[in-house]
Formats: sequence, C-alpha cells, structure tokens
Amino acid sequence: MTRTVEVSDLVDRARDGQPRAVARLISLVEDASPHLREVAEILAPLTGRARVIGLTGPPGVGKSTSTSVLVAAYRKQGKRVGVLAVDPSSPFSGGALLGDRVRMQDHATDPGVFIRSMATRGHLGGLSWATPQALRVLDAAGFDIVLVETVGVGQSEVEVVSLADTTLVLLAPGMGDGIQAAKAGILEVADVFVVNKADRDGADATARDLKYMISLGRRDREGPSWRPPIVKTVAAKGQGVDEVVAAVDGHHAWMAEHGELERRRAHRAASEIEAIAVARVRSGFGDPRGGAALEQLAKRVVIGELDPYAAADHLIEGLQS
Amino acid sequence: MTRTVEVSDLVDRARDGQPRAVARLISLVEDASPHLREVAEILAPLTGRARVIGLTGPPGVGKSTSTSVLVAAYRKQGKRVGVLAVDPSSPFSGGALLGDRVRMQDHATDPGVFIRSMATRGHLGGLSWATPQALRVLDAAGFDIVLVETVGVGQSEVEVVSLADTTLVLLAPGMGDGIQAAKAGILEVADVFVVNKADRDGADATARDLKYMISLGRRDREGPSWRPPIVKTVAAKGQGVDEVVAAVDGHHAWMAEHGELERRRAHRAASEIEAIAVARVRSGFGDPRGGAALEQLAKRVVIGELDPYAAADHLIEGLQS
Repeated sequence: MTRTVEVSDLVDRARDGQPRAVARLISLVEDASPHLREVAEILAPLTGRARVIGLTGPPGVGKSTSTSVLVAAYRKQGKRVGVLAVDPSSPFSGGALLGDRVRMQDHATDPGVFIRSMATRGHLGGLSWATPQALRVLDAAGFDIVLVETVGVGQSEVEVVSLADTTLVLLAPGMGDGIQAAKAGILEVADVFVVNKADRDGADATARDLKYMISLGRRDREGPSWRPPIVKTVAAKGQGVDEVVAAVDGHHAWMAEHGELERRRAHRAASEIEAIAVARVRSGFGDPRGGAALEQLAKRVVIGELDPYAAADHLIEGLQS
Repeated sequence: MTRTVEVSDLVDRARDGQPRAVARLISLVEDASPHLREVAEILAPLTGRARVIGLTGPPGVGKSTSTSVLVAAYRKQGKRVGVLAVDPSSPFSGGALLGDRVRMQDHATDPGVFIRSMATRGHLGGLSWATPQALRVLDAAGFDIVLVETVGVGQSEVEVVSLADTTLVLLAPGMGDGIQAAKAGILEVADVFVVNKADRDGADATARDLKYMISLGRRDREGPSWRPPIVKTVAAKGQGVDEVVAAVDGHHAWMAEHGELERRRAHRAASEIEAIAVARVRSGFGDPRGGAALEQLAKRVVIGELDPYAAADHLIEGLQS
C-alpha cells in the first residue's frame, strides 16, 4: 500500500463526511508532516467550492454565539458547515483546548458540522500559514460553508479573517466609542457589520456611529465599491440571523457579478503561497553554512560591528550559496 | 557635500538632543529612504547603551498614563527618555496621528523626552520591521531609556514589546477573569506585572489571581528563571511608580548577572535581521521573471491546477534564477 493510496482514502472518507478523516487531514497539513505535499497535491483539484465567511470583532460582542446560530441557520439549509476558530492565544493558557471544549457544544454531535480550533502553538509560520491549509482541507472535504471565527482583534486575526470571501465584523452597544473599534483595524475589512446584542440600550447609536464611519471611510479596495450593510442581531435569541445570512448572500452575489470573488480568492491563494515560501526561506536562515547563521550575525549586530542591513545581506547570500 | 556627511551631521545633532534631527533620522529608517543603509551603518557602533522597557496590557488599564509617569520618574533621575507608541491601527482611523496628539502632553515641551507613534501605515514589513529601526535611532541618539508602549494586545504588539530588555504587563481590577488576559498572550512575556488603578475594588483579587497564574505557568524561556514581581500602582496619582522603577532595575540587574541581557539583545537583533531579510526576499516575489510571479501562480492555485506548495517551489526557484 503506497502512501498516496492512504491519503486518497482519507480524502474519500472526509468527503463522505467522516469527521475523523477530516481531523486527520488537518493534522497532516498543520504539523507539516512528510505527507503534507502529497495531501496538498490531492486536495488541489477538489478545492474552490466552499464559501468562506470570516467573523471577527472585539471581545464580548458574542462571536461564539453568533457563529453557533449561523451554523444552525446554514444547517437548516442542508449545508455542511466547517468552523475554524482562530485563537492566537499563548501556550500558557491552553486557549485552543479551552475553545474546543466550551464553544459550539450545540453542534458537537452533528456530523454535518466540523469544528476546529486553530492556535498558534506548533505552527510553522503561524496562523497565516496554518489557517488556509485547514480551510483547504474543509473545502476539499465538501463543506459548503466554512466559518472562520477569530477570538481577538489583533493584526494577525485581521489578516486571517480578511482571507474570507465575506467578512462579518461584530460590534455590540456600549463597547466604547467608535474609535476603539477603528483602532482594532477591523472596520475596513468588514463586508457586513453586525450589531449584536441589539436589544440593549445604545444599539441604534452604535448602528448610527457605524453608518457615519462608513460614510467617512474611503474603501481602499480596488474595483467597484461595496457598501457594507449593518444588520442588528440578538444572537442569543436567534434574532436577525436570517438577515445576516441574506446579507452574506447579497455580498456573494455582488462579488460574483463584479469579478470580486475571483480577485479575493486569488489574493487568498497568493497569501498562502507567500506564507509557505517565506516559511521555507526563513527555515534556511538558521543554517550555519558559510558563517551566515542568523545567531552569529545577531551577536555581531549587538556589539555594533555590523548593522542589521549588512547582516541581512549576509543572511541572504548564505541562503543562495 | 556627500550624503554621508549629511547623515553624520544629523546623528551628531540628534546626540546633542535636537528633536528634529531625531525625528528626521527615524523618518529615514521608517520610509526605507535611499539613505537607509548609510544611516544604519553610521548608527551601528553607537547603539547598545539604551535600556529598553516594553509596556503592554489590555485597553483601559492606563498604559498611556503609566508611560507618562514613568517618563517623569526617569526624567527626575536626569535620564533622557524616548517613547515609541506602537499602534497597529488602521489607516482608517488615523490612529497614529491621534496618538501623537492626545498622549503625553505633559512632556511635549521637554527636550529630554522624545515621543514617536509607530503605526502600520506605509511600513515595509510592518511594525516588527519599523520599531527596532526607530529604537536603534533613539539608542544611538543617546537616549538612556526607551519606553515601547503598545496600544492593543494583538500578537504583533506582543512580538514588538517582547523585544524589550524588560517588559511591563499592565492589568487593572475588574477587567474580567484572568483567562481573558491570558488569551491575549501577554502573561508569558511579562518581566514585571503592574496592577494599575489599585485604589479600585478588586485590586487585591487581581494581584492574587496573577500570583496564582504565575505559579501555574511554566516559563518557557531558557536559562535561569525570573519570577515576575507584581507591583500595584495608581498611575493617575503617581502612586507606586518608584516601585515600578525599582522592579525594572531589579530585573535589569538580574539579567546582567545571568547573561540574560546579552541573550535578549541578540534575540532582538536576530528578529531585526530576519525581518529585514524576509522583507527583501518577499519584495522579490512579485518579480515577473520566468513566469514565477506570485499573481500568476495564485491564479493557477485558485483553479486547482497547482497546489500552494508546488506554487511556493516555483516562487523560490524564480527568486534564485
């Protein structure tokens, strides 16, 4: 039995909806196993079908709950749904494990739903490397919808979530002034704004502030401009969820019409390729050939013998020799 | 008049304490000007003297105020103090500008203090690239203390702040359970914990929780282990600031004794060199020689003709040809 047959078999079983096969495939791509290349090659022609929805926002806005009700809504449509919960937390907290345990318990026994927490730990090249790989597995395994939910609002989360076809940015009333949200760098990645906890005081004011900020903000994206709608929800009560689904559909149709979907997916692929290439180049930096090892160069920079640009020259020369 | 003379002159004036010369040098390194290499070369032998203190924590803990009172404390010791306010906010909000305006007004007219906001915008390679460059300028310009303050708690801020000699992590009572803080990935980078707003209810509980979490957390750093002290402050009233300064001094002495200072500075230099080298390699990825341009490869990946690993191979081959 060759390896290729094993991997093909895993892919077949994943496409049949066996969660353990999906999990195994994700592990193969996450851990940069020797079979990684083989898996990638087999998956390639099977990808491009899933609709990828990113979901981000400050802590406390109800991202997990919103993800959970969205999963339910898409399941009602008969769609298979994958969830990647991106959690750049530290090994200190064991965040990913915690995430797997506490979130999404409603869907734990549904074979049409697959949930995976993506944490930083152990990932060569970080989340920007690992998340698209896992996404690719879910896509090839036949999931119709992949929700990429982020835990925080840092730059890396924004990068990850902006790889989605459609990005939902969640806010909630009384989360401080709009500037705080803007600071997080999430406003300009939003395709749809969701004001969750809309039964609380201040929901209208939050929506109004958002509307104002949208009118101010020039959208830096190329091509025809999409004006993000603002949807109010009470995710905990399932209110407004159909409207979110409709807004996502609307955005999808708009993208398809304007060639934006292809553009975004090409962008996603480019980021993925670049991350792989950078990780590979970087792994060569520690190589001690020719005295160009990074560690030695760093010591020379510390004592002021070399400036960091000259050191970078040596490093790159070392790679190419 | 050669360029080298001009840059030398700038450096001389920066070392004389002329803020405009410092600002000009930082702009030269930030904008990757043609003089960048020259500046770096002239600065190199002048660096290695500044003590670098990182300051991070969740929004609302009083980072700006704490930075401001720390600046005052070090000024009282007659030290020249530089502040780099790292703000990975979006161009949307104009965060850096805002930062420059609202923070640190107390020190605006003190020639012994230099304040600079570092935002993502326009930085080749991002904050992890630009911040060490600016730090290097302040170091060479003779600032005794450089405070690197971050605005958010994302991964990039953690990366930036962990380049410091000593990292202060600020928390405040009633900021939610410890898990939230741990999630931010900031606990394991702390050399000193500061519980600010310690006149509020819950300060003792926060300190106790921290103590417990420290006792649980294995410190992944190599070498002998430093146990981060917990200092309570009320920065707005200047309370506890001397204790913070003493804790930083204690950590510095401990590092010097255990060879940790050299190790950290070598690590900082290595990160800096690597960021420069990666940015340079990455800039070659768009190069259309040999049909290996990233964009073309991305399109082939989108249609499933190529897997991203094979595409990365082509990209790297293209670089070396």
